[in-house]
Amino acid sequence: MLKISLDEHRRRQQLIRAELEKRNLHGACFFGNNTIFYLTGFNFSSTERPMALVMNTTESVMFVPELEKEHCLIDTAVDRAVSYPEYPGEIHPMYQLQDLFAAMKLDNKAIGADGAGYPAVNGYRGPRLQELMPQLRLDYLTDYIVEMRMIKSPAELALIRESARWGDLAHQLLQRYTSPGKSEIQVSMQASMEATQQMIETLGERYVAMGGRGVGAGYRGQIGAHSALPHSMTINATFQAGDTLVTGAGGNIGGYRSELERTMFVGLPSEKQQYYFNLMKEAQEIAFGAIKPGDPYSVVDTEVRRFFDKHNLWEYWRHHQGHSIGLEGHEAPFFDIGDDSLMQPGMVVCVEPGIYVPGLGGFRHSDTGVITERGFEIITNYPRDWASLICQ
Amino acid sequence: MLKISLDEHRRRQQLIRAELEKRNLHGACFFGNNTIFYLTGFNFSSTERPMALVMNTTESVMFVPELEKEHCLIDTAVDRAVSYPEYPGEIHPMYQLQDLFAAMKLDNKAIGADGAGYPAVNGYRGPRLQELMPQLRLDYLTDYIVEMRMIKSPAELALIRESARWGDLAHQLLQRYTSPGKSEIQVSMQASMEATQQMIETLGERYVAMGGRGVGAGYRGQIGAHSALPHSMTINATFQAGDTLVTGAGGNIGGYRSELERTMFVGLPSEKQQYYFNLMKEAQEIAFGAIKPGDPYSVVDTEVRRFFDKHNLWEYWRHHQGHSIGLEGHEAPFFDIGDDSLMQPGMVVCVEPGIYVPGLGGFRHSDTGVITERGFEIITNYPRDWASLICQ
Repeated sequence: MLKISLDEHRRRQQLIRAELEKRNLHGACFFGNNTIFYLTGFNFSSTERPMALVMNTTESVMFVPELEKEHCLIDTAVDRAVSYPEYPGEIHPMYQLQDLFAAMKLDNKAIGADGAGYPAVNGYRGPRLQELMPQLRLDYLTDYIVEMRMIKSPAELALIRESARWGDLAHQLLQRYTSPGKSEIQVSMQASMEATQQMIETLGERYVAMGGRGVGAGYRGQIGAHSALPHSMTINATFQAGDTLVTGAGGNIGGYRSELERTMFVGLPSEKQQYYFNLMKEAQEIAFGAIKPGDPYSVVDTEVRRFFDKHNLWEYWRHHQGHSIGLEGHEAPFFDIGDDSLMQPGMVVCVEPGIYVPGLGGFRHSDTGVITERGFEIITNYPRDWASLICQ
Repeated sequence: MLKISLDEHRRRQQLIRAELEKRNLHGACFFGNNTIFYLTGFNFSSTERPMALVMNTTESVMFVPELEKEHCLIDTAVDRAVSYPEYPGEIHPMYQLQDLFAAMKLDNKAIGADGAGYPAVNGYRGPRLQELMPQLRLDYLTDYIVEMRMIKSPAELALIRESARWGDLAHQLLQRYTSPGKSEIQVSMQASMEATQQMIETLGERYVAMGGRGVGAGYRGQIGAHSALPHSMTINATFQAGDTLVTGAGGNIGGYRSELERTMFVGLPSEKQQYYFNLMKEAQEIAFGAIKPGDPYSVVDTEVRRFFDKHNLWEYWRHHQGHSIGLEGHEAPFFDIGDDSLMQPGMVVCVEPGIYVPGLGGFRHSDTGVITERGFEIITNYPRDWASLICQ
């Protein structure tokens, strides 16, 4: 099955328990859905109905609305579920969470947490933990969990590799369908639909839907002059000869992601387009070359910044050189001058120096790769040269 | 333009300032992207790069990464932007936010807030506000903002009505394309793609992309026996004669949403399917009839619960009878026995009693409507009778 095993989820909980012991904490309470998914495999969207994972030294208990009680125990590393009828309900669920804290002997202890209370998602309103339990002390484990997630296990790497494979396919379809006169939405949805269908059919029962949208490829509005805006929005542009395009593609496999982005052209690029494309490609190769286990992440940014100096590119600089990836599309550490985290085998990163030339377009490839004992292995396999990235 | 005017965003900020004065607060700091969008019209996704709206009695300032500096001032009710180069950067952005607090004379005052610090999105790590500014006191305005958003203005109502119109179209296409042997993904993506394209082309320059996905219609896996799971997931099922289906459709117009859901059948429904369908439809009509300005939201749940009693339906009960809607797909108040908020003209609600029969399927329509001075006006116009909801 293309998902993390229950054993692995349980090992993650053991790491949390070891950290609790180290910090003299008696338990923990987590509200974040990414954190709960990471620790238990229970996949859900946060809504107005509060949910929490409550851990003491022996048990991991999901606190859920009745609606999710069955769901949170199917194929998850959850020991048991405690449910409330509905939110807001006749008794506010937080009082029922308080009862659970008391039953687990946590209501007057120091515990780890990822928030002061359930967040105001979808109009949720309710008291924070310490308003109900004034003797409770909270020690935030948020940073610790960010750090736990940095080095990927063999099972996580396998899911991310699988994601990259289907991103490659979706991107191929995206490029094939992009041509002058076609619309952005039509092409993106066609490519995403076919890739998702092929993926689900090929993987068969091994594929576990995780609430993601299968595999997608698209433009997010980065078409023509708009491609110079790194965070543009879909405008349903019609492709025109001469456009610079910036793409994005990737699949969601067992909750894990990869990132493939390419700069493409509608028809042959002008000399100016080729010029910035080649600089971008060179910057990405410099970044690839700077990835070495044991060195700090900042080194990669420093090397690319030197290249920006040399070619007078600062006017076109917009962001650092990349990020890690896994359960979220961006994760820590970052290829940023201010990030001194060390590169270590098992980390998965996206390398994406960008050059943004107003009026002309944006130039950015992003490739996902694994930091290994020996260096860096790129797992997105899509051509990087401009001659291969022309849409006719 | 299909968006909220800057004047209206400024009026919302004035309401915040009035609340600050009432609570003897000197300013406010908001990190949530929904809240920032509501107050300023600046639309963005939260990432590892922290952003905040900082208000004092005279100014509303966006604190952003350089990457967003231009973007946050285009067509927004933001007085000025203060930017930091990048996250994590050479100096952690939170120290630069601290400088801004000092310049705005807020760093040792009592202020309103929606969180203790920027949340751990995308691997963000950093100090909370009070770790940097121990003299700062925080008063949470989260509930107040939930309440501010309850009654919709005429401009908000116009956007939600427009959203409902395109939801109707997308749903029509979804029903038209659904037939035995077709796959869920194919049909959903085809309907969503065509509806989005028609919407963008029809609305032309009045349509402002807000990062949403245009208009969508689909099944979320609620197909055949799976339709009995209210929060099912896409499994790329192939439609088969006899399937009970539960759909969902709606557009994103200027950041605002509507909700249209229907129970449909592949081919003629069996007597058992008709039986539960008709009960569900009756329950929804009871809910419609119970919506009266001045009465509490709980009344609607109470009335439908009486119907569940009468027909012995508790085995098939899974959730309350609906929710409000606007910027988020679910908002407060809720049609829930525990929600004593009063129904008031200008509130927009989704009415969706559900009956879930394991093995047979789920039965739920959802319609969006506006509470008016006189009663309730439904704005989703799609047939509700089973004879109109058959896919051939």
